[in-house]
Amino acid sequence: MISPRQGLGLLIIGGIGLWGLRDVSVGLIEALRSSDYIFLEEYTSITPSFSKTELEKVVGRRIDLLKRVDLEGSHLREILELAKEHRVAILTHGNPFVATTHAYIVSEAYRLGIPLEIYPAPSVIDAILCSTGLHVYKFGRIATLVYPDERAGFFPYTTYRVLGDNLSRGLHTLLLLDLRVEEGVFMSIPEAASLLLRLEDKFRENIVEPTMLVIGVSRALSPEEDIFIGTLEEATTLEKTSPPHSLVIPGVLHDTEIDFLHYKTGVRKEVLISWSDYVKRKLRST
Amino acid sequence: MISPRQGLGLLIIGGIGLWGLRDVSVGLIEALRSSDYIFLEEYTSITPSFSKTELEKVVGRRIDLLKRVDLEGSHLREILELAKEHRVAILTHGNPFVATTHAYIVSEAYRLGIPLEIYPAPSVIDAILCSTGLHVYKFGRIATLVYPDERAGFFPYTTYRVLGDNLSRGLHTLLLLDLRVEEGVFMSIPEAASLLLRLEDKFRENIVEPTMLVIGVSRALSPEEDIFIGTLEEATTLEKTSPPHSLVIPGVLHDTEIDFLHYKTGVRKEVLISWSDYVKRKLRST
Repeated sequence: MISPRQGLGLLIIGGIGLWGLRDVSVGLIEALRSSDYIFLEEYTSITPSFSKTELEKVVGRRIDLLKRVDLEGSHLREILELAKEHRVAILTHGNPFVATTHAYIVSEAYRLGIPLEIYPAPSVIDAILCSTGLHVYKFGRIATLVYPDERAGFFPYTTYRVLGDNLSRGLHTLLLLDLRVEEGVFMSIPEAASLLLRLEDKFRENIVEPTMLVIGVSRALSPEEDIFIGTLEEATTLEKTSPPHSLVIPGVLHDTEIDFLHYKTGVRKEVLISWSDYVKRKLRST
Repeated sequence: MISPRQGLGLLIIGGIGLWGLRDVSVGLIEALRSSDYIFLEEYTSITPSFSKTELEKVVGRRIDLLKRVDLEGSHLREILELAKEHRVAILTHGNPFVATTHAYIVSEAYRLGIPLEIYPAPSVIDAILCSTGLHVYKFGRIATLVYPDERAGFFPYTTYRVLGDNLSRGLHTLLLLDLRVEEGVFMSIPEAASLLLRLEDKFRENIVEPTMLVIGVSRALSPEEDIFIGTLEEATTLEKTSPPHSLVIPGVLHDTEIDFLHYKTGVRKEVLISWSDYVKRKLRST
């Protein structure tokens, strides 16, 4: 039990990145070594090969796991109270601010006047840029593709619209795929591809076509990274790879983007060029 | 002089993040310790408080600086040749793939069959998300605001259009501001604000207004971080703060985004709400 030290409170929000200890930063390690309490939130994403025990050894401190319920309501209040008098760290996968949960925690800390230190880390967006060589300036809005809830009549229409809106501007779309870590549910690339086809069936706005080009990425930038480039229809028949997964629907491709994907994956340049030309033609006709 | 070791070549592309040694990852440190040659590219961005000497001490290896010319043409060829037989690392600021230069280097390495390891790091985009609490899903296309070249008749029209396109959809726009590290030129927030007004004067598409709300961020997420929230007109009169700078033009703001900015910076909620309502009204009228 650590005794309260008035005025010594600090909330540390730290990203652990994408893969194992690889992406944990020198600054975060230092901050954790002098922390009184360390919590790890593991429900908004996963970090393949990350070992809590390994990090505990490196920083010489115990790390407690947080469930979804611990970061909502009264449990969050308790953690923030703790941070008024202790050095309390909350660790998250990826970059801490891609999940809105963490922005809310930080907002509450600002409201309560708790001093804050934020340790950024690479997010899935950084990984996708590194994995695909697609230019950051050519992405439109990012969206998450979540499972429909058919009984409640819910289908991810906004995501379908975002894809249409981006494509009609020739922009790439990054779709982050649903994951419910606590339930062990991770949307796979074939599931996502089938879902996109179902959304077209339902909404019929001529956005999704079986022949559209998709880039499926699993475990981006990890040693087990797997990249699929082909049509949406082909993607529906893929085997499920290890999570987490993302799907990119490219827009107009720059020559250097085509080179990158070709030299990295062996996909024929013609495949990329012909899709890019198709998107370009549709741009002109609208 | 290290003797050639056939088949032992490796190109390491490593991001050093945003601020000092803080964001350098454990994985990158390990990779550098066993590198034969380490180069640091310092012209696409800057990392405040980063010390080459400090990193050299930590990894026990010499680090050579690269100029722009070194990563273009025959110099790049030489570095890639070196990587066929040695462990060669190229370090860059931020996340390695936000600058297209690095994507090109990696593409060339894939083309030449050189084994690659990529160490991601947080980029300016991660920092802006952490600094402003704005939701990643509510950003439209990202753009760079570069200095005009008036003699050549060049004005950054695309950036002006991207801003208009995002705003007309209620989306936030992140403008990365021009920097020419080798010339010591860094576009400041007041300069950027004035340039936006000039672009409106020139193109007159009713995109930029003196009363529009802007969020100016300098040295995002560093201990010297400085955030300005106010009108574009007010931004033109600010004093120049330390680079690098970014400018965000918010679209429709979510309640939790408003809370975050209010509690963090003290800006009145009414200021944020009234701008957000204005953007919303314009959405409905189009």
